[in-house]
Amino acid sequence: MRHRDWMQMALTEARAAAQAGEAPVGAVIVRAGTLLARAHNERETTGDPTAHAEIIAIRRAAAALGRWRLDDAVLYVTLEPCPMCAGAIVAARLRQLVYGARDEKGGGVDSVMRILAPGIWNHQVEVTAGVREEECAQALRDFFRDKRNP
Amino acid sequence: MRHRDWMQMALTEARAAAQAGEAPVGAVIVRAGTLLARAHNERETTGDPTAHAEIIAIRRAAAALGRWRLDDAVLYVTLEPCPMCAGAIVAARLRQLVYGARDEKGGGVDSVMRILAPGIWNHQVEVTAGVREEECAQALRDFFRDKRNP
Repeated sequence: MRHRDWMQMALTEARAAAQAGEAPVGAVIVRAGTLLARAHNERETTGDPTAHAEIIAIRRAAAALGRWRLDDAVLYVTLEPCPMCAGAIVAARLRQLVYGARDEKGGGVDSVMRILAPGIWNHQVEVTAGVREEECAQALRDFFRDKRNP
Repeated sequence: MRHRDWMQMALTEARAAAQAGEAPVGAVIVRAGTLLARAHNERETTGDPTAHAEIIAIRRAAAALGRWRLDDAVLYVTLEPCPMCAGAIVAARLRQLVYGARDEKGGGVDSVMRILAPGIWNHQVEVTAGVREEECAQALRDFFRDKRNP
């Protein structure tokens, strides 16, 4: 499967989040062409401020592998990660981040801060942005429009 | 209780981490003069890359309050937070961070990045550094010296 196919799965997760009343962000983690974990934002449902899609997916992937190092794994997420999630990507030693839409107000990778920029940490993460960008952004726009006009 | 007293409790958590073979970092979260949560680093024990003291304490405090917003709460941690944990402090809307020792290679607050610097995010976090700094740093030095010369 290619980047666009894995991002499609992350988008399916994002839509499940919206149906649960959560801002639609979804993530999947893949290693050696195999799905390790999938998750969506659960902050409101769980009351856990760390329950972003990426954090949940990273915890599930680590549980699946039985170790905290997610070497060679790729995280796909529909929205540019916030600083917490960008930091978690370094903490988990993920090889690559692929994201969909930019988060102009909260993004910790390109938009507001550049936490994964080369040369800052010992561990380097490859970043690919803009995969299915318009669909990922549209899912968020639809959700917030419906919230304003229920 | 004052900053130094709560940091003493965080140091007790850090020493419990060391006894479990974890790098000694401890955290407590306090609100209205009352302890909400205490935790220590559990990354190796749990195999969870997000199981830093701060993240565990934040999740426990949110569970104790029954909501993800930790308004008016203060996080005490023995070591300067990494980017993930600095981001989690913003995500949880904590009022104040009080930390002990600097982390020159991994710190996301003062040393390597300044994720909590004023004017970046809508939510501002007050930062107080250097409380029981020498004891917090010594606990880490002792741990890594013992690891090298067991």
